[in-house]
Amino acid sequence: MSKKVAVVLSGSGVYDGSEIHESVFTLLALAEAGAEVQAFAPNCDQMHVVNHLTGEVADGETRNVLVESARIMRGNVLDIAQANVEEFDALIVPGGFGAAKNLSDFAVAGSGLTVNPDFLALAKGFHDAGKPIGLICISPTMTVAICGEGAECTIGTDPETAAAVNATGAKHVDCEVTSFHVDEDKKLVTTPAYMLASNMVEAKTGIDKLVSSVLSLA
Amino acid sequence: MSKKVAVVLSGSGVYDGSEIHESVFTLLALAEAGAEVQAFAPNCDQMHVVNHLTGEVADGETRNVLVESARIMRGNVLDIAQANVEEFDALIVPGGFGAAKNLSDFAVAGSGLTVNPDFLALAKGFHDAGKPIGLICISPTMTVAICGEGAECTIGTDPETAAAVNATGAKHVDCEVTSFHVDEDKKLVTTPAYMLASNMVEAKTGIDKLVSSVLSLA
Repeated sequence: MSKKVAVVLSGSGVYDGSEIHESVFTLLALAEAGAEVQAFAPNCDQMHVVNHLTGEVADGETRNVLVESARIMRGNVLDIAQANVEEFDALIVPGGFGAAKNLSDFAVAGSGLTVNPDFLALAKGFHDAGKPIGLICISPTMTVAICGEGAECTIGTDPETAAAVNATGAKHVDCEVTSFHVDEDKKLVTTPAYMLASNMVEAKTGIDKLVSSVLSLA
Repeated sequence: MSKKVAVVLSGSGVYDGSEIHESVFTLLALAEAGAEVQAFAPNCDQMHVVNHLTGEVADGETRNVLVESARIMRGNVLDIAQANVEEFDALIVPGGFGAAKNLSDFAVAGSGLTVNPDFLALAKGFHDAGKPIGLICISPTMTVAICGEGAECTIGTDPETAAAVNATGAKHVDCEVTSFHVDEDKKLVTTPAYMLASNMVEAKTGIDKLVSSVLSLA
């Protein structure tokens, strides 16, 4: 039986949505492993729209997280409110600022973050059911909200971000970009990806290992 | 010396821009081969914006091809008007409807297509300099405009699309999704990718071979 994995996206583009390379590498690794995938995203407006050429916020523009996530999925993505934990063996969340702007508000609130209620309900459902969760790049900022105090996760090497993660109650673990970390108790797998990656191959190497680890725990 | 490859994008999303998986697979294969990449895109409005969740045109919305292409490139993309053939060893163009809507108007004009003048000048520059060109998915609809009459290319197996390609003066060649075709005379390499692919692994297999072939010709 092939494993069924829910992938949660948060838009399409590193500065206001899911990081595109990380999302594609996650989906590719799952496809190569023969896993079945269903993508989900929140049906709400993005925190904002960023012009990815200039890095500036595009004032007055609004985009919907679910609609933009559909670009990465060639249309095949569902409203996260429709997701049912019982249908899946594991959950994986790629990074990109969307994870810190649309799935949570970590980008503005730091360690005082709140998490999108539909995403949080789903992710906690996986955790409570003892099903493995993979969080990539900046997504582990939501570790404590999902897995509770003391859960171990990676976030990269930026001291300020690591301190903010520790301040949420998680335990930041140093990890090379081409590696990953498993909190065996929590069944939580994390990898820094573009928090540290200087090129696509580095990001892919860590993500490949994360996906393999998540599937082995499922 | 690593080879330098220009990659031309046409937005970000299969229905109105560059196909995201094809673009990422192209960039990944080039990175894995140690090639240097610079991405370019036309600095103009998209033909239209398509809601990728519904497949419907988003009336009244406009997006810029260069700005949206920057999502795939994490910001690192230049106006195609700045591209200089002499700086590169090869050119590759991923597919997606953007190639048939923003780089050309094949999506509406069929075999009577016209090609974006900046893109056409660049691509003909590569051809005239004897440098190899890789066209993926629906991009080979521009084969004759770039390489002249009788050039061989793939487009998939849809008879209507193949007939339209032949009507431009190109010679359509049947090709499996996991393979590619080389017109040795024209130094043109093509692969069907998502014209035929039913999954990511199929698309990636053909694109990996196309990139390898283009680099070997460079």
